[in-house]
Amino acid sequence: MMSKDVVMVLGADGYIGWPMCMRLADHMDVVAVDNFSKRRWALEVGAKSLTDPPPFPKRRGAGVGIDFLEVDVQEVGALRDIIRSYRPSTIIHFAEQPSGPYSMIGHAQASETLANNVGGTLALAHAVMDVDPGIHIIKLGTMGEYGTPNTDIPEGFFWYTYNGRSERRLYPREAGSFYHTTKILDTDLLWFYCRTRGLRVTDIMQGPVYGHRTSDIVANNADPTQFWYDAVFGTVINRFIAQAASGHPLTVYGDGSQIRGYIYIEDSIDCLQIAMENPADEGELQVFNQWTEELSVLEIAERVAAGCRVAGIPEPPIEHLPNIRREQEGHRYRAENKKLLDLGLIPTLLTDSLMAQMLEDAYALRDRIDPSVFRPTIEWRP
Amino acid sequence: MMSKDVVMVLGADGYIGWPMCMRLADHMDVVAVDNFSKRRWALEVGAKSLTDPPPFPKRRGAGVGIDFLEVDVQEVGALRDIIRSYRPSTIIHFAEQPSGPYSMIGHAQASETLANNVGGTLALAHAVMDVDPGIHIIKLGTMGEYGTPNTDIPEGFFWYTYNGRSERRLYPREAGSFYHTTKILDTDLLWFYCRTRGLRVTDIMQGPVYGHRTSDIVANNADPTQFWYDAVFGTVINRFIAQAASGHPLTVYGDGSQIRGYIYIEDSIDCLQIAMENPADEGELQVFNQWTEELSVLEIAERVAAGCRVAGIPEPPIEHLPNIRREQEGHRYRAENKKLLDLGLIPTLLTDSLMAQMLEDAYALRDRIDPSVFRPTIEWRP
Repeated sequence: MMSKDVVMVLGADGYIGWPMCMRLADHMDVVAVDNFSKRRWALEVGAKSLTDPPPFPKRRGAGVGIDFLEVDVQEVGALRDIIRSYRPSTIIHFAEQPSGPYSMIGHAQASETLANNVGGTLALAHAVMDVDPGIHIIKLGTMGEYGTPNTDIPEGFFWYTYNGRSERRLYPREAGSFYHTTKILDTDLLWFYCRTRGLRVTDIMQGPVYGHRTSDIVANNADPTQFWYDAVFGTVINRFIAQAASGHPLTVYGDGSQIRGYIYIEDSIDCLQIAMENPADEGELQVFNQWTEELSVLEIAERVAAGCRVAGIPEPPIEHLPNIRREQEGHRYRAENKKLLDLGLIPTLLTDSLMAQMLEDAYALRDRIDPSVFRPTIEWRP
Repeated sequence: MMSKDVVMVLGADGYIGWPMCMRLADHMDVVAVDNFSKRRWALEVGAKSLTDPPPFPKRRGAGVGIDFLEVDVQEVGALRDIIRSYRPSTIIHFAEQPSGPYSMIGHAQASETLANNVGGTLALAHAVMDVDPGIHIIKLGTMGEYGTPNTDIPEGFFWYTYNGRSERRLYPREAGSFYHTTKILDTDLLWFYCRTRGLRVTDIMQGPVYGHRTSDIVANNADPTQFWYDAVFGTVINRFIAQAASGHPLTVYGDGSQIRGYIYIEDSIDCLQIAMENPADEGELQVFNQWTEELSVLEIAERVAAGCRVAGIPEPPIEHLPNIRREQEGHRYRAENKKLLDLGLIPTLLTDSLMAQMLEDAYALRDRIDPSVFRPTIEWRP
């Protein structure tokens, strides 16, 4: 390899990491990095995926134009070495612990989330500064960092006025889980090194992603990515799909009025590719809000029901559970997402036919579904 | 002990920790906790103190009403055990790596600062949640977290308007060193657990402290606290005092127009006592800006010169060094500090006579001063 432009993907074994590698491998040299932490965390909490892909290097589709390296993102020396030897133009950083519930289990999990997500990002920032601060870092953030303010949610920075004078800074974020809080912290950390050391960083504020098939995986006849459907690692749409496909009720926390901005997995890969093609300037933290459709949990349940009718699967009942999270219900939600659309993102919407296709995929695998992992068990109220 | 109200002081061996213990020991049972990290960091960089107090348990003044425990604040189990056994009503958390320059040396120091400051605060939050979330946590923040915005600086929270709608959140902070950034992160972390788990936290946004004698140390004939005067751990006023007392020029970084809010050590102890007497409510992050006098670096140099005239010490010349920090010069600075004044703080101002007294103290110890540590060596520009 090394003839083409090189991209390094940290967390390449993960839900987004694998389809990202499949997207890039046909036109770039991909250095895929993972240490399989996510598989360990999933085992620890008994998380379940509808699909069962082998670890990265053994997957069908891996290999062509891809070098795989087992490295922990907290190991600054190893990270520095591989960056120095491969000289990527872009590093995409997915190597974070991604579950809110996991981070709320207790101190051990919170501490591991902090060390991995913030300590890992610190090591990455230093490794890049040491080798070449011009490397573009794309980091996954989450829309969850903003919380649910009473104002619109800008894309990263905003101008405000206090006592008659104005300033521009990052919108003050207030997240709903400790995991989401660590994503605020790693952004603050990278933004600090942009200001003082001239790093180039793009922060993708990602809404919850759903689906698991991407055009690249299908075209390469590659193994699928994971499709977590449990209460710890499964996001709401994927969990509902598994519940409907296996004939179980949809578990709605509280009244289901919680609104978020969602995005289909293919679109999330498109967004990351757009970010690669539009790198941040020297010293810039470029922030994109990445979602295509604002939906309440109850609206999602209606889409699932409609998809079931198209797919010929029985419509699932809704079961309202007490909300053991600490989150607002009946809140306002209006987030901006103009930048990626202006750069060419064409949204895939959660149509009845897309829902039906995802339900059919899940229905074909329904014997693998373990309904015991649907119910949330991790409390984060006092 | 255990007959009186119990206070736990983390970082009790430090610059503020020791005088704080001396303030509290006559009317409370004090549990003093430290693991001597600061002494290790000081050795590592060759930091120098004008005074030479022995480690905490051996100091003259320690012992009466004070239990000393050697515990690392990152050790959640040990922290939980001592909180459970002593049941403090208040925990004052000074146990952080406090130097901007130290945090900018390289990855090892940044990583240790992150692990100690943010990991330590995470362990403290969990230990308190596990034992009794009602314990009032007082954490030292720093005015440096705010940076130098073009607006006034509120005390923690502010109301802002975006696209015609209003919200109240923490003022968005942008710090000038990695250390200061970790103090933003630990505040975000504690505020998260206030919201979700009902912790009571007071964050003291402290301006640079100067001086080393407090009335309690004098009254108890206790050993002094440290008086760091080197470029890594010495804050500007203390460093200038050591430079003037030893006949060396005052080292001004850049043009000296940088303005900060300063506070005398006795007042900083008063502020912490006021915070103890006015605990945060359940679920509240209470933020105090703690400074009494806004001064530019050049104004401080003038005060030093005036103090020298009173003390009969030769006036030092000023040496302008290139600013190897990444900070604004000629900036606006207007920070609010009303809350502690309303609660009874009576400011000690940096008068010529106070300056003369500090200069005389330093002059008496001038043979101990090592001028080789005055010059900054840690670059934080790209």
